[in-house]
Amino acid sequence: VEIAILLFDGITALDAVGPYEVLSRLPGARMRFVGTERGAKRTRSDSLALVADHTLSEICRPDIVVVPGGPGEEALRHNPDVLDWLRAAHETSRWTTSVCTGSLLLAAAGLLDGVEATTHWASMDDLGALGARPVKERVVVRGKIVTAAGVSAGIDMALRLAQLEAGDDVAMAIQLIIEYDPEPPFDAGSPDKAPASVLEMVKARRRVRAAPRP
Amino acid sequence: VEIAILLFDGITALDAVGPYEVLSRLPGARMRFVGTERGAKRTRSDSLALVADHTLSEICRPDIVVVPGGPGEEALRHNPDVLDWLRAAHETSRWTTSVCTGSLLLAAAGLLDGVEATTHWASMDDLGALGARPVKERVVVRGKIVTAAGVSAGIDMALRLAQLEAGDDVAMAIQLIIEYDPEPPFDAGSPDKAPASVLEMVKARRRVRAAPRP
Repeated sequence: VEIAILLFDGITALDAVGPYEVLSRLPGARMRFVGTERGAKRTRSDSLALVADHTLSEICRPDIVVVPGGPGEEALRHNPDVLDWLRAAHETSRWTTSVCTGSLLLAAAGLLDGVEATTHWASMDDLGALGARPVKERVVVRGKIVTAAGVSAGIDMALRLAQLEAGDDVAMAIQLIIEYDPEPPFDAGSPDKAPASVLEMVKARRRVRAAPRP
Repeated sequence: VEIAILLFDGITALDAVGPYEVLSRLPGARMRFVGTERGAKRTRSDSLALVADHTLSEICRPDIVVVPGGPGEEALRHNPDVLDWLRAAHETSRWTTSVCTGSLLLAAAGLLDGVEATTHWASMDDLGALGARPVKERVVVRGKIVTAAGVSAGIDMALRLAQLEAGDDVAMAIQLIIEYDPEPPFDAGSPDKAPASVLEMVKARRRVRAAPRP
């Protein structure tokens, strides 16, 4: 099983590493981190870099494609090399998947036209504007397209994928190995569950970031 | 807040990236990925590398120390540079923390003598043999030492740390931003919950790996 995870500057690291930690434990998994160019791809905070060992052209027919999200995703929506690669990989892939705003890239490549899909809760409108039909679920499986909600949802998505690819026992074994028995200190992980004041705080911060710079 | 995360070859990536994704969102966070030498540190599968931008000697007094685990941890238990750095950093740190088998390194440095701590479920005996008092909880806070169970538990640990460091609202905001509203497809994330056959499968695989090579 050849599994390609796209890396780019401005990636959200957990979007890529959550699925990596699950899918790399599939029997026979060959993980390939790919980028438009080889080398270190930095997160927005600039403090962490993940290394792409392969260029897009080196990995042509992955069995599974994983497209993470992050603030750097927007810059790729008009990058023909990335969009062409996604379209070509999707033609032969067994599963084409995304985490967080990675689905916006799939949509920009034209792979989600009229297809039900999900993304980070704050980007649902953008996903719709790009032609997909946004669904408020943590993991959405439609045919061979599997999309996940924000950041940490990539772990749940990858376990679902492990189940589809290798069966219940393998998926449960992986869950046990990564001791994924979540115990968050709060129940505030979705806009429906977080206190209104916390949701407003997060939205206000996003508005400041999205505002045009002088 | 200066936050140092230790990197090394044979690291489990999610051990480091889970806490990174949470702690990098703390107000004023300055994340520092440190290694005995600068450069790319590879996971056991060899397919993913995280980059250490700093040497140990460059980051002397971090406010928060995070020690991830992974199969490469064992090789560091006798590395005086790493153990000396951990001991020195712990003298002035506000929080000294670990994920998964990272606690075995804290123990090897003598920081857990007689202290209640946790680790990956399969390494509890090793943790005890190194002088700590193993506790079967997902996150264990004892004074300024905070240890987490296996791999994915680093996310829960970091949210708890965010709460201790910056209060409930900030911690909940971070949980909401990373959309941490877990929905694993199975309830198999701990040895008490996984089916006996799955637990036995995982244990058997670990025995094969631990067996001496010819």
